[in-house]
Amino acid sequence: MKEVIAVVRMNMMNRTKKALSDAGIAAYFAHEAQGRGIGFVNPKLLEGVKKGYEEAAELLGEKGKLYPKRMVTAVVEDDQVDDVVEAIIQINQTGKPGDGKIFVLPIKDAVRVRTGETGIKSIS
Amino acid sequence: MKEVIAVVRMNMMNRTKKALSDAGIAAYFAHEAQGRGIGFVNPKLLEGVKKGYEEAAELLGEKGKLYPKRMVTAVVEDDQVDDVVEAIIQINQTGKPGDGKIFVLPIKDAVRVRTGETGIKSIS
Amino acid sequence: MKEVIAVVRMNMMNRTKKALSDAGIAAYFAHEAQGRGIGFVNPKLLEGVKKGYEEAAELLGEKGKLYPKRMVTAVVEDDQVDDVVEAIIQINQTGKPGDGKIFVLPIKDAVRVRTGETGIKSIS
Repeated sequence: MKEVIAVVRMNMMNRTKKALSDAGIAAYFAHEAQGRGIGFVNPKLLEGVKKGYEEAAELLGEKGKLYPKRMVTAVVEDDQVDDVVEAIIQINQTGKPGDGKIFVLPIKDAVRVRTGETGIKSIS
Repeated sequence: MKEVIAVVRMNMMNRTKKALSDAGIAAYFAHEAQGRGIGFVNPKLLEGVKKGYEEAAELLGEKGKLYPKRMVTAVVEDDQVDDVVEAIIQINQTGKPGDGKIFVLPIKDAVRVRTGETGIKSIS
Repeated sequence: MKEVIAVVRMNMMNRTKKALSDAGIAAYFAHEAQGRGIGFVNPKLLEGVKKGYEEAAELLGEKGKLYPKRMVTAVVEDDQVDDVVEAIIQINQTGKPGDGKIFVLPIKDAVRVRTGETGIKSIS
């Protein structure tokens, strides 16, 4: 099992939910988040920061604005990860900064509280 | 160490907090979330989606309503995981859809900012 | 890659963001959370709970107040973890209970939705 976390644009939430359903994922949860990706940043600035230029760090700090986002988390079987990631990309990719990020994390176990089922049974 | 994430009903938050305290866990955090479990979905619909019936996918998509939930996260020692999971189940299990889910994730390290302590010392 | 999650005081958010930028991290997201650390709890009470004294459990339960916090998550390269953790500690350490916690989690993969890039490319 893996945890797939997608950080997407606010207005893409409904379409992302539909994409998950279409991929056969019925269980997931969501919350509001604020975020920024590297796309919002002048890469030269970042390079400057890495080289230790204080001015670059200052400018980057001023740009540290966080944008409202939605975060969607689904716990899926290993062989569903690729489909889920692909589905999220297809819906959310506009090619502009702010399209979002997807993270895949290992999961040790999952439990369905209603039945006490664990492992894959708990999420399928 | 493991991260135990529980997604529970809104009105079960206080009792879940008490269950964690009773299990000897004093450090945890919580946030609001919206979620849905497979229990909210007609399993035949989901089967249909998996088989590729577009109609089933459409119906499932329409049902993609997210319910308000509370998410509680505790980072605990390995040998506390079973007790914590059991305690959360005991408090939250009503047998009805919506009882929630528990996820157990591996943790590489934890740090208590106040003291700089790491590992198990940081959470006990 | 690792996921670094920091739970910090509400009013430390801007300085924590700046610390991340100064450490060369430009991509991260944040959300509101409520939390409590062990520092808010009388350690004798907790000891009593561990020994099974019901009275201690009751008192601890009453103290189960959650404080408003901010949670910041950054996905970084393995060799950035120490710098990022150190930067968060330096900014947030007051020595008083409530300074916060940092968790380091393993990450299987990350994807930049805009380009489809995966792995370290997606976060740098």
